[in-house]
Amino acid sequence: MTDSHAAADLGRAVLTVCDGAMEESLDRRFARTWTALGGIGRDRTTGGYRRAAWTPADLELRTWFADQAAQREMACEQDRNGNLWAWWGTPAAGAVVTGSHLDSVPDGGAYDGPLGVVSGFLAVDELRARRVEPARPIAVVAFSDEEGARFGVACVGSRLLTGALDPDRARGLRDRDGLTLAEAMRRAGADPADLGRDDEALARIGSFVELHVEQGQALVHSAEPVGVATAIWPHGRWRCSFEGEANHAGTTRLQDRRDPVLPFASTVLAARGLAERAGAVATFGRVEVSPNGTNAIPSRVEAWLDGRAPDDATVADLVAGITAAAERAGSLHGTTVRVTQESWSPVVDFDARLRDRIDAVLGGVPALPTGAGHDAGVLAARVPTAMLFVRNPTGVSHSPAEHATADDCTAGVRALAAVLEDLACR
Amino acid sequence: MTDSHAAADLGRAVLTVCDGAMEESLDRRFARTWTALGGIGRDRTTGGYRRAAWTPADLELRTWFADQAAQREMACEQDRNGNLWAWWGTPAAGAVVTGSHLDSVPDGGAYDGPLGVVSGFLAVDELRARRVEPARPIAVVAFSDEEGARFGVACVGSRLLTGALDPDRARGLRDRDGLTLAEAMRRAGADPADLGRDDEALARIGSFVELHVEQGQALVHSAEPVGVATAIWPHGRWRCSFEGEANHAGTTRLQDRRDPVLPFASTVLAARGLAERAGAVATFGRVEVSPNGTNAIPSRVEAWLDGRAPDDATVADLVAGITAAAERAGSLHGTTVRVTQESWSPVVDFDARLRDRIDAVLGGVPALPTGAGHDAGVLAARVPTAMLFVRNPTGVSHSPAEHATADDCTAGVRALAAVLEDLACR
Repeated sequence: MTDSHAAADLGRAVLTVCDGAMEESLDRRFARTWTALGGIGRDRTTGGYRRAAWTPADLELRTWFADQAAQREMACEQDRNGNLWAWWGTPAAGAVVTGSHLDSVPDGGAYDGPLGVVSGFLAVDELRARRVEPARPIAVVAFSDEEGARFGVACVGSRLLTGALDPDRARGLRDRDGLTLAEAMRRAGADPADLGRDDEALARIGSFVELHVEQGQALVHSAEPVGVATAIWPHGRWRCSFEGEANHAGTTRLQDRRDPVLPFASTVLAARGLAERAGAVATFGRVEVSPNGTNAIPSRVEAWLDGRAPDDATVADLVAGITAAAERAGSLHGTTVRVTQESWSPVVDFDARLRDRIDAVLGGVPALPTGAGHDAGVLAARVPTAMLFVRNPTGVSHSPAEHATADDCTAGVRALAAVLEDLACR
Repeated sequence: MTDSHAAADLGRAVLTVCDGAMEESLDRRFARTWTALGGIGRDRTTGGYRRAAWTPADLELRTWFADQAAQREMACEQDRNGNLWAWWGTPAAGAVVTGSHLDSVPDGGAYDGPLGVVSGFLAVDELRARRVEPARPIAVVAFSDEEGARFGVACVGSRLLTGALDPDRARGLRDRDGLTLAEAMRRAGADPADLGRDDEALARIGSFVELHVEQGQALVHSAEPVGVATAIWPHGRWRCSFEGEANHAGTTRLQDRRDPVLPFASTVLAARGLAERAGAVATFGRVEVSPNGTNAIPSRVEAWLDGRAPDDATVADLVAGITAAAERAGSLHGTTVRVTQESWSPVVDFDARLRDRIDAVLGGVPALPTGAGHDAGVLAARVPTAMLFVRNPTGVSHSPAEHATADDCTAGVRALAAVLEDLACR
């Protein structure tokens, strides 16, 4: 790709920051901001991030966000649903909003989410350094609990905002220790009473552009650092409960067992085969065995299926096939099987006009679909929405190995700044 | 079976307790003692017991043991390895020792272990009520950490006592939170410095008889409440580590994945087939998935294989077959597999002379092997050892559904009393 035409004029080395008092290159500002954020919620053993919603790490991230806003004299607010907003200009209808999320999956990478928030703040710096005067307010947002790592439902903050998640259901979601989201918010000093659709906040968003690290290698193959999203694959989560009977691992004859690990294992292999044939993906990433003792046949296996495909019908067929396989295996082993949907996100096609406009601003960049859910996918149902992707050399994501080079990250900031300028000024 | 000839003379209804001050039937004494113990370490949600070694529940059980000893004016001691002893008579070589353990697997039943300790105390009451005067001391023992539920090695107390477990290895064993056994003992007020082979304590044991709830249905089929053990199947634990690569569940193509859940699932199914063909049992009762997030392909699955069979060679062949299957599946999915033995107990044939003597005292009872490990299996390598089994209507064990009727339990106490009297007096 080319750098954005606006940013390219300025060269890469030195930019004047907004207060004019000192000059610091974008490379340096990116490195400095990124490093400050990098210590929050990092597990020293795994090198991965543990930034689940409303944990102490999440609160540190929220403080970091407020500091970034304060450094830029941007008004900072936490909305009724726990989403954070930093405003350049007075909040008003038609604002150009960018951002992403700060939480992570367990032992996740540094880039998924935070790169979009950091890039939002640095893009504001870019525009201010260039004395751009937006005709519309610009906001940087950090949506709450995007990954759903703690309470099992993804994009909680954006779904509550748009009304896609019922506030009572959200309040009652429980983490693995049985704590509800409502109680977790209270313990973190936030009030869950006002969760729910927030038309006032939503009405302010004229357009939303989320920048995100790519979770795949399409940009590697195209040799471009930045791309634009076409669609998000439909995806959902299903909880598969295999119920058997606890018994002694040494004294219970094989034919007397009702061991739930066996139908679970059959289901895992069936899911892989079915997903291969459907051109879909199916993953059992979370498994909980009870009572989980070496010399006890388990009484129960709970396993969560994540299923995605290019279209809604393919996912539905995939899950129906996996459910049937689970039931056959369960019946063979004297165990009961229950498959319940925990979340469902239909296919998202991003706003074509906004995508074309971005493509024009950036001088033509690769357009790609993604299998990952994003807050942008939730927002897309209500406001014109787009996504920018930044190249990921290995494609690895949701892992400490997730990566983007500093050069690609700053290219992302420049592209985002160009897009914001175009949307806010023209 | 017949009740023991000695106890049968006295009838079932009323027995004089040792101090002669009151009369209470064995049925009532059993119910009273059992009920008092039943509240310790019970999880209200599952109805199962969580009595892992050196936890607060274990300390409550130790206090209960000391109280039982004190009520009977039996000298109580905790040996260097955390095993509890209650003495009727002065501790000396040639003692007749009975007992079992008080700890449980996670969500285990009430009977596995505690029934043997309670029956030991009540058998002492029986003998005292009948004014039996033993020629040799009698002791009731509760071995520490028989289940290995917390630190992963079974029969820690008896293995340390007999020298079968290296004390440095024991001290360094870690629980799931990374706490060492040494530190857990210290936090529980016990000193781990003197762990290790205890020839003095061992020299006192003339013979050891462990009473245990049956973990199977052989006695149900034979219609007898009490049986005697012939052998313990050889058994071991192997840790199977499947190492893959964490990645995003939505964006990583199936062919690019190194998902360790897949070879684990293949290994579970292979193990079942191999165990069926070998006349063995194989169980994966404990599974830990990392990072265990719904939308992350796991980086690692750790699964513990419990394998048992009638003879050592069959177990070795079984584990070799499962290891080969795991490696084949691992290689197919780009994951590495490592299988390491964590424990191994060769076949135990109980002392034939002692078993014949018990069979004569009890007037002929069913003789059966067992697939479960026991402290008696560890002791058998050093002293004449026997086991009595009490009928279990469902055969279920290591589960809240584990059960024995009160009538069968008191039949067990009477049988044990008769055996102790024979061994201690003749």
